Amino acid sequence: MASTKTQPARGMRDFLPEEVRKREYVIGVIKEVYERYGFEPLETPAVENIETLLGKYGEEGNQLIFKILKRGVHERTGEADLALRYDLTVPLARVVAEYRDKLPKFFKRYQIQPVWRADRPARGRFREFYQCDVDVLGSRSMVVESEICAAASEVLKKLGFHDFTIRLNHRKALAGILESAGVSTESHDAALVALDKLNKIGREGVEKELAGRGINAEAGQRLLEFFVDLTSLDHAADIAAGDNVEQKQQALNKAVLGRMVEFVGDNETGAKGIYELGVIMDFAQTMGIGNLIRLDPSLARGLSYYTGSIMEISVRDLAGSLGGGGRYDNLVGMFLGADVPACGFSLGLDGLRVDLYPEADKLGKQFKYAAARGVSFVVVMGDEERTRGEVAIKDMKTGEQQSVKRDSVASRLHESLPLPAL
Amino acid sequence: MASTKTQPARGMRDFLPEEVRKREYVIGVIKEVYERYGFEPLETPAVENIETLLGKYGEEGNQLIFKILKRGVHERTGEADLALRYDLTVPLARVVAEYRDKLPKFFKRYQIQPVWRADRPARGRFREFYQCDVDVLGSRSMVVESEICAAASEVLKKLGFHDFTIRLNHRKALAGILESAGVSTESHDAALVALDKLNKIGREGVEKELAGRGINAEAGQRLLEFFVDLTSLDHAADIAAGDNVEQKQQALNKAVLGRMVEFVGDNETGAKGIYELGVIMDFAQTMGIGNLIRLDPSLARGLSYYTGSIMEISVRDLAGSLGGGGRYDNLVGMFLGADVPACGFSLGLDGLRVDLYPEADKLGKQFKYAAARGVSFVVVMGDEERTRGEVAIKDMKTGEQQSVKRDSVASRLHESLPLPAL
Repeated sequence: MASTKTQPARGMRDFLPEEVRKREYVIGVIKEVYERYGFEPLETPAVENIETLLGKYGEEGNQLIFKILKRGVHERTGEADLALRYDLTVPLARVVAEYRDKLPKFFKRYQIQPVWRADRPARGRFREFYQCDVDVLGSRSMVVESEICAAASEVLKKLGFHDFTIRLNHRKALAGILESAGVSTESHDAALVALDKLNKIGREGVEKELAGRGINAEAGQRLLEFFVDLTSLDHAADIAAGDNVEQKQQALNKAVLGRMVEFVGDNETGAKGIYELGVIMDFAQTMGIGNLIRLDPSLARGLSYYTGSIMEISVRDLAGSLGGGGRYDNLVGMFLGADVPACGFSLGLDGLRVDLYPEADKLGKQFKYAAARGVSFVVVMGDEERTRGEVAIKDMKTGEQQSVKRDSVASRLHESLPLPAL
Repeated sequence: MASTKTQPARGMRDFLPEEVRKREYVIGVIKEVYERYGFEPLETPAVENIETLLGKYGEEGNQLIFKILKRGVHERTGEADLALRYDLTVPLARVVAEYRDKLPKFFKRYQIQPVWRADRPARGRFREFYQCDVDVLGSRSMVVESEICAAASEVLKKLGFHDFTIRLNHRKALAGILESAGVSTESHDAALVALDKLNKIGREGVEKELAGRGINAEAGQRLLEFFVDLTSLDHAADIAAGDNVEQKQQALNKAVLGRMVEFVGDNETGAKGIYELGVIMDFAQTMGIGNLIRLDPSLARGLSYYTGSIMEISVRDLAGSLGGGGRYDNLVGMFLGADVPACGFSLGLDGLRVDLYPEADKLGKQFKYAAARGVSFVVVMGDEERTRGEVAIKDMKTGEQQSVKRDSVASRLHESLPLPAL
């Protein structure tokens, strides 16, 4: 008897009973919090008409959409008329356009369903993964931004994450900065892709990349100076606030906001974006999550539908993010013909589960504990590693140990692990 | 601004908050019962390698599989390498083959996930719908059949269904009957398709159809006589048992089993199937669900992977079924190369929600009640309708009323309703 391949398809996962129960626990926590914040559940089909999805996610997104062949006699044409859901935001916009008479004026919904992206699994990403979205439709108030950040933060805290920050930026502020530096509108995207690498390849590397992407040298210089200067603020705030982390974060945000105001000057778009960032931070302060927000003018986010604020949740020492979102006031209009303001936040359900060993015990004792808990990998960051900006990863099965850069820990673990996703 | 189409894709549905909550209630009931029977949750990806699915569902099934285009440079070939899950049974067989060392010897799992079928929506079917499956792997004992019937029955009762029966048959008994009638093996499928219409087109209709499908006239006659004779048993059991419904069902089952034994004579395959039917009915009696089981030698079921018992749950006066299942001892072997016995049952989550008016009040009063409850359609079966084998359907919005055959009520309602699925 021949045996067919029995693994799940590339980049897809089976969830055995224990894993299903874990995920159901996590989903239960998320639902409980979002319901308490007044969000209501929505579900949309996995399959959408292909034209609903195309052109909403930017060029890269378009290419990652799974397309479904026409059926019957049309199958031979090789054409696709349907596609798998790529995120939960575009289907939401379609739903709001379709049922606007049935939905409340301010529609607060949460949605927890899988999405599919034809990403290269080698990059440590899955091709099917759950997204947990909250969105508020119908309001331009920036209370919405603060509320969804507060709700998402509460979810993460309940799930045991404590060392995260919400990076905050604004598409209009970003546009203002680029314009003020002298980057032409058609080069904005290219400039952002290059700037995104500042931490990895340094100032000189980005300088070359900007030039390579055809950005005027003078504009590139101005831009780099702005962003490099920002990093010095971190140090200044450190000294000013001493050990008070909360105070430091607030001082830093104010300083960054000040620099942005200075830099964009009388650029109208930029000034509007920066004003809105200030309002969001004030509301966040009132809601008690001011210390979680870190203003980050370099945050860009890939999706093309954002029009205002953009946010991303980062965990210290882990590359990638636990989730992100922003304001997309024009997306519903693409379906409805009339704009409906909207803002939302999406949590990925596949964040790595990380345990921090709570005591300064000897390493041997820590490894013993990890083995007893059935941990697959232990990440060690001693003084030596800290100096080099590296960490050591020990594979608990084979005993092998290797050093990697701090910001590539997550992707390295993803590559090594048949991930027992949450 | 142009507005794109905003309805969900053909045959797919959006679930607004109230509908999501209803469905979550139903799923909660199902989980609670299945967990209590010792089943464990499993989840598999929506997308499978195409060769995992092809050839498992018979020719019709193959054509209803949604296929996913290859990506990137391969997209232009128009070829598909992936496909959407068509049921939950084939992925389960793949999982059991892949993780056999991790799973218990007897693996009892439940799985509640959507499946996709490119059916014609005009037939009142959805192209995306939830299936709720229970399966037991690793045992040839017919206790398994009784246990899954008991579990599924308990689910239905908890959901308010009280007037259902589990129709029971056996692929081997069926083969024995056809062989004994003289139908050649290669004509078995064709004969079953024709016999399936006995209730609709009557004896003469089936006779013609059998001939049209190339079945030997003498064999066709013998077959028809067997099945037509069975209908007379119903009447006999009625008289013998009086008003005792339970007693009537048991008497009828025994009588049918007797006829089957008689008819297959010394046909070995048939005798084995009939013996197993007897064992299943005995276990069902012990488990207290004997009165729910109706032996039905005409039940065939479409899927090609069944090897033993087959079951289907019918609700009186509704065409179609709430679910079905059976034994498929060879399916895991198609992946593993070694057989693993298996038996399972699948409930559809899209059964119509039906209220029965509990009192013999005047029709006017009943209509008033229906209107107050926001009911869309009222089905009336008075003495007149009963005689004609028809029912009257009243559309509560338009006031229109029409008469339809009793067994086409469900499909007629499906056509008229933008179904507020469970």
